[in-house]
Amino acid sequence: MDFSYSDDTESLRAHVRSFIREQIIPYERDARQTPHGPTDALRQELVAKARAAGLLTPHASVDMGGMGLTHVQKAVVFEEAGYSCLGPTALNIHAPDEGNIHLMEAVASTAHKQRWLRPQVQGHIRSCFAMTEPAPGAGADPSMLRTTAVKDGDDYVIHGTKWFITGAEGASYAIIMARMEDGTATMFLSDMDAPGIRIERQMHAMDSCFAGGHCVVTFDGLRVPSANVLGEVGKGFRYAQVRLAPARLTHCMRWLGQARRAHDCAVAYAMERQAFGKPLLEHEGVGFKLADNDMDLHTAQLHILHTAWLLDRGDSCNFESSRAKVICSEASWRVVDRCVQVLGGRGVTDESVVMRIFQDMRAFQIYDGPSEVHRWSMARKIGQAHTRAQQVSA
Amino acid sequence: MDFSYSDDTESLRAHVRSFIREQIIPYERDARQTPHGPTDALRQELVAKARAAGLLTPHASVDMGGMGLTHVQKAVVFEEAGYSCLGPTALNIHAPDEGNIHLMEAVASTAHKQRWLRPQVQGHIRSCFAMTEPAPGAGADPSMLRTTAVKDGDDYVIHGTKWFITGAEGASYAIIMARMEDGTATMFLSDMDAPGIRIERQMHAMDSCFAGGHCVVTFDGLRVPSANVLGEVGKGFRYAQVRLAPARLTHCMRWLGQARRAHDCAVAYAMERQAFGKPLLEHEGVGFKLADNDMDLHTAQLHILHTAWLLDRGDSCNFESSRAKVICSEASWRVVDRCVQVLGGRGVTDESVVMRIFQDMRAFQIYDGPSEVHRWSMARKIGQAHTRAQQVSA
Amino acid sequence: MDFSYSDDTESLRAHVRSFIREQIIPYERDARQTPHGPTDALRQELVAKARAAGLLTPHASVDMGGMGLTHVQKAVVFEEAGYSCLGPTALNIHAPDEGNIHLMEAVASTAHKQRWLRPQVQGHIRSCFAMTEPAPGAGADPSMLRTTAVKDGDDYVIHGTKWFITGAEGASYAIIMARMEDGTATMFLSDMDAPGIRIERQMHAMDSCFAGGHCVVTFDGLRVPSANVLGEVGKGFRYAQVRLAPARLTHCMRWLGQARRAHDCAVAYAMERQAFGKPLLEHEGVGFKLADNDMDLHTAQLHILHTAWLLDRGDSCNFESSRAKVICSEASWRVVDRCVQVLGGRGVTDESVVMRIFQDMRAFQIYDGPSEVHRWSMARKIGQAHTRAQQVSA
Amino acid sequence: MDFSYSDDTESLRAHVRSFIREQIIPYERDARQTPHGPTDALRQELVAKARAAGLLTPHASVDMGGMGLTHVQKAVVFEEAGYSCLGPTALNIHAPDEGNIHLMEAVASTAHKQRWLRPQVQGHIRSCFAMTEPAPGAGADPSMLRTTAVKDGDDYVIHGTKWFITGAEGASYAIIMARMEDGTATMFLSDMDAPGIRIERQMHAMDSCFAGGHCVVTFDGLRVPSANVLGEVGKGFRYAQVRLAPARLTHCMRWLGQARRAHDCAVAYAMERQAFGKPLLEHEGVGFKLADNDMDLHTAQLHILHTAWLLDRGDSCNFESSRAKVICSEASWRVVDRCVQVLGGRGVTDESVVMRIFQDMRAFQIYDGPSEVHRWSMARKIGQAHTRAQQVSA
Repeated sequence: MDFSYSDDTESLRAHVRSFIREQIIPYERDARQTPHGPTDALRQELVAKARAAGLLTPHASVDMGGMGLTHVQKAVVFEEAGYSCLGPTALNIHAPDEGNIHLMEAVASTAHKQRWLRPQVQGHIRSCFAMTEPAPGAGADPSMLRTTAVKDGDDYVIHGTKWFITGAEGASYAIIMARMEDGTATMFLSDMDAPGIRIERQMHAMDSCFAGGHCVVTFDGLRVPSANVLGEVGKGFRYAQVRLAPARLTHCMRWLGQARRAHDCAVAYAMERQAFGKPLLEHEGVGFKLADNDMDLHTAQLHILHTAWLLDRGDSCNFESSRAKVICSEASWRVVDRCVQVLGGRGVTDESVVMRIFQDMRAFQIYDGPSEVHRWSMARKIGQAHTRAQQVSA
Repeated sequence: MDFSYSDDTESLRAHVRSFIREQIIPYERDARQTPHGPTDALRQELVAKARAAGLLTPHASVDMGGMGLTHVQKAVVFEEAGYSCLGPTALNIHAPDEGNIHLMEAVASTAHKQRWLRPQVQGHIRSCFAMTEPAPGAGADPSMLRTTAVKDGDDYVIHGTKWFITGAEGASYAIIMARMEDGTATMFLSDMDAPGIRIERQMHAMDSCFAGGHCVVTFDGLRVPSANVLGEVGKGFRYAQVRLAPARLTHCMRWLGQARRAHDCAVAYAMERQAFGKPLLEHEGVGFKLADNDMDLHTAQLHILHTAWLLDRGDSCNFESSRAKVICSEASWRVVDRCVQVLGGRGVTDESVVMRIFQDMRAFQIYDGPSEVHRWSMARKIGQAHTRAQQVSA
Repeated sequence: MDFSYSDDTESLRAHVRSFIREQIIPYERDARQTPHGPTDALRQELVAKARAAGLLTPHASVDMGGMGLTHVQKAVVFEEAGYSCLGPTALNIHAPDEGNIHLMEAVASTAHKQRWLRPQVQGHIRSCFAMTEPAPGAGADPSMLRTTAVKDGDDYVIHGTKWFITGAEGASYAIIMARMEDGTATMFLSDMDAPGIRIERQMHAMDSCFAGGHCVVTFDGLRVPSANVLGEVGKGFRYAQVRLAPARLTHCMRWLGQARRAHDCAVAYAMERQAFGKPLLEHEGVGFKLADNDMDLHTAQLHILHTAWLLDRGDSCNFESSRAKVICSEASWRVVDRCVQVLGGRGVTDESVVMRIFQDMRAFQIYDGPSEVHRWSMARKIGQAHTRAQQVSA
Repeated sequence: MDFSYSDDTESLRAHVRSFIREQIIPYERDARQTPHGPTDALRQELVAKARAAGLLTPHASVDMGGMGLTHVQKAVVFEEAGYSCLGPTALNIHAPDEGNIHLMEAVASTAHKQRWLRPQVQGHIRSCFAMTEPAPGAGADPSMLRTTAVKDGDDYVIHGTKWFITGAEGASYAIIMARMEDGTATMFLSDMDAPGIRIERQMHAMDSCFAGGHCVVTFDGLRVPSANVLGEVGKGFRYAQVRLAPARLTHCMRWLGQARRAHDCAVAYAMERQAFGKPLLEHEGVGFKLADNDMDLHTAQLHILHTAWLLDRGDSCNFESSRAKVICSEASWRVVDRCVQVLGGRGVTDESVVMRIFQDMRAFQIYDGPSEVHRWSMARKIGQAHTRAQQVSA
């Protein structure tokens, strides 16, 4: 049992921390931020900073140009990066690229890696992950997938509509999930400028932290050569799991950073702002909220580290990553909501960064599986574990 | 004990309901809505609709051109109006005008009423209420008021900075709260185009439902003739209570309408959207949320009606309006937050009206006294009531 | 809209209040209280007090010897009686007799009423309601009923095991729910000393407020003449609803009284006990709890009154009584749990009556349908109402 | 970062686990259990079992006859022991002896250790810790201590009344906290059969797991020779902290075991009991509760392990042990409360062990500092840390 980090990891943390505070936070009021995320010019400028600091795409393999971080190291780096809403963009560790890079490393062929992954790790291009569909298609229940891929000669022809496709606008390539004629699912790789891909519109979302925003994308007879199947045909659902378990956890890491930022703002304000004859913090009604924040932040961190450690050991962690996702998304949200309340009027305006964190974070309880789906998945696994334990003892 | 409405009130409810659904909801996607609320052109158009329907400024006295509604009738009408985010603007019952009209009716002189109140009731002009100040001034603790009014001949000269002044941009007149040399507070009336009033900027708030948004306003040597003191000198804090107890309750009414709207959207979606083989509503994880919504909505309504009935009896209701404010602001928020979760991705984008309700409503737990201040006020009154009861029985 | 009580009801409230405080509370430390409720001697003594005060069995019809209270009047009287854990026993309005009396009034024949109801209303005898069964029988899901009734000549012969049969020990008669050969259910009336009825044991429950405790009862060839079918054959499930909707609500009333008692104890303690230089109440951590208590108590009361008023109007109130049951059982529990915390060590010992209230009340979230079953029932009805509303508007 | 246990610790866990399940759980229905805990005969029999298994008093130093466990090892062993309500008694690791042993090891002289600690570690005698006093004395606020110690020749003469003195009945010696004439506090050691010590009564508490129950104890001119001052004069408050930080954490460990037991019962029941056509667990309303249980259990465990690891490193952990205490006491309580709800009627009777756990556990949110005091202490430390961080960066 050892809760300490290695010296290397501590140095890395210190490096990322000062990088974010000194070089990235000053950009937070930069005008090149839109309701659909930072512009590409801003993104490139931030990425250049991270590149210069030796911190770009640190989770990618050393081979591909990253730092080959362990999951525990990612926990440290991603949380520090998340302290600024622009940090994950700067380090090239934001969704969906972060998860796509992980998936590509695990599954893509050498040719695919050369073509798409390497420039992505270098921060030159972005990608999107085209799975979610409008009703009655695949949402919380991925088995409802309606986008189809039909073999036609050496190509597959894809038809369907996707939405909430984060980062589609401005992405260079997409990973597309489609249903095969036999009911299985396959992932396909395609350049975004291929004929047959159309970005219908950018959706108006409450968050504004993802470069490219969230888009409705139509595949209207998109042709993908067989060679651009990602991994093997028919393994789409399995690969989605490969991507999701760590992707959920990296969301937890980044949002923990944002929650910590909100908490620090609230503490500073509660120390300084007076009411009824003393600083806010000395009112139990405020002080208890800050204590609860500390508890939630530490809880989230412990779950992240424990799950990351399990992933580093090679466990698949489907149960644990569901658990961490529910705990972290709900705990971080409670923290930010309390901060809004402590900050009063400032918390619901851009006088404080907390309003933006509040708007950016709410969806975290929904994407990559809403809390309800994870609770249900956990319940079934608890039942199965009970049955197994009984069989062992019988 | 009678929970039924009079026939007149029921007719009025039906009238407002169909007015809102048929004439106002169609405007909800109207482009003349800005981050700082509906434009004046849109506001005038909506007000004209309500005027034509005989529903404009219904809470004002008949004398001033309103319908002289009781508080219970207001509960019915305001909730129905609140069903659309534009309803309160249309009926001219939104904050801060609604509360200002109430205060002016109670305290203003005949001359003041003629000059400012009558055109306001007719929907021609708007007003603002200039009390809240940036740190270290008056926020949750009004006694920290720092704006000063100094007698100079027959005028008062006012210096100070206010913020979160809702509706200041575009308002014709202001009610200004300032500290006197003897430490008491006084309310002053002034046209907004008077020299010495400067709108520094509109704040970037999460809500966008209030015409004019929220402004930083500076009084830099504003001269107000003695004749434009509202009511009596030195009674500012008392008048703030006259305004606040009903104003808190009308917030509860309007937001209950918004919460109900969100719930209706969530129910419709949960009936229609399938996942894992059945409609969302048939999953207990969703169905329980909708049941909890119903409980919260009905709880809010009962507290509103009870407090409104007490106000109609002439009770001052300081305790009860604090209680209703805490209960309604927290219950309505839980409802809307659950709706976001039920709606999934739709709930965090403008695919659904619920996102906007979510963004508009959060501040309700903060303004007109944050929950913490009301809980504290209630606790002290509970203690005082206990002491009184003991003295009686001793 | 009128939240006031009639003068008669106010007088009745005052009468019950002083009766409980002056005559019943002094018995609370009476040694004739067992883990299975007050002894019969104590019960008779308390009942005699209520009889002398003209308050015995006030919900029964005037015909049968009661006061024929409306549901709203019951709300007032039962809450006042509930202020002492012995109050409902004294007034003969405790479960299960209160509900059984209601059911007998509604369904029983004149002969049955003469034989069983009249002496019960007079407080001479008690009854029990034999529905719940151990697994795999009828619990939260009544359709799982396994006790059988088979016609044999002019008799029915009943076999089965029941548990959680409150008050069985010492009861004079039972209402027995059994499954017929055609799958329907019927209610039967039987003296408890009939051959074929055996009380196996009294269960060790956390509560101790119900006379007779909770028993396991076996029916082993119990013969019930056809004449002692309660109401009509095959209508058992329907009658269960007749009994349950008001029975749920009377639980809410009585427990609200207990919650109010706990709150009063906590307020008194928080005013008197000092810590860290001031009374507990002046610590926000305690004061906020008391404010929350007040909110929960008033919420529970408003739901009770509203549902009672609907029942008085003749509505069946299945939805509303489910809703009130969930709200009141959870709100009252939160109140009592907060009181325990405020009282500290005293709250978890019999230094305060609150410990007993805590132990007595927990089961209220379980019996007469656990919260989960009511939430589910509400959700389905919300869905049905939505469908009906759509059909109307289509 | 390493969340694994050493092989030795894993073996120890397995040993304790099988010991508790095979040798201790069978005693849970033993009749020698009273409302004031197991009788001494039962205690001796259980202790003999642990002695034979080599598991007696494992947290004591090897010198004194224990196993010299680290805090992390204690976390493992105490949680396993806590799986049965009799486990901590068997292993001699229950409050207050566990904490007293820790304090004696840290502070007592060799002579004191020989006289009192050694036989206590061997399980032959018990002790009590006499700090808490009835109002207006020391409760949540220890500075209100009213028991006095006055020097008289070579003795101290102690007067005062204590209550909630756990285990006093049957204890061989007491550690007594008293106020000196200069306002400081001192701890004294005394045999319980000394003249001047009187056990007034055993209090009627909701819990029944502590041998000896909770007592009111009077010191009426108790003479303690100077030689029996524990440690140094005037250091009472400091020693209380020495005792409390680890003592809080061992409560967390034992109660986590109880919470896990309750959860296992609830899972087993939810798998087996059917309602509405499927096992309870397959109803989301139940399944989600079990998922929430798992989250709370794992959260509690992570906080315990992290704090134990810090203690093993030599940190004082005042902040962290407060935090762990609040989190674990509230999380474990939520678990047990959910289990009661899942078990339905069984959960509120002794048909299941869960009722007893529910009754035993509630006080955990109160003793060793109620949650409110810990939250307040945390808030102040958060403020101090903020100030320090600002000074560093200034």
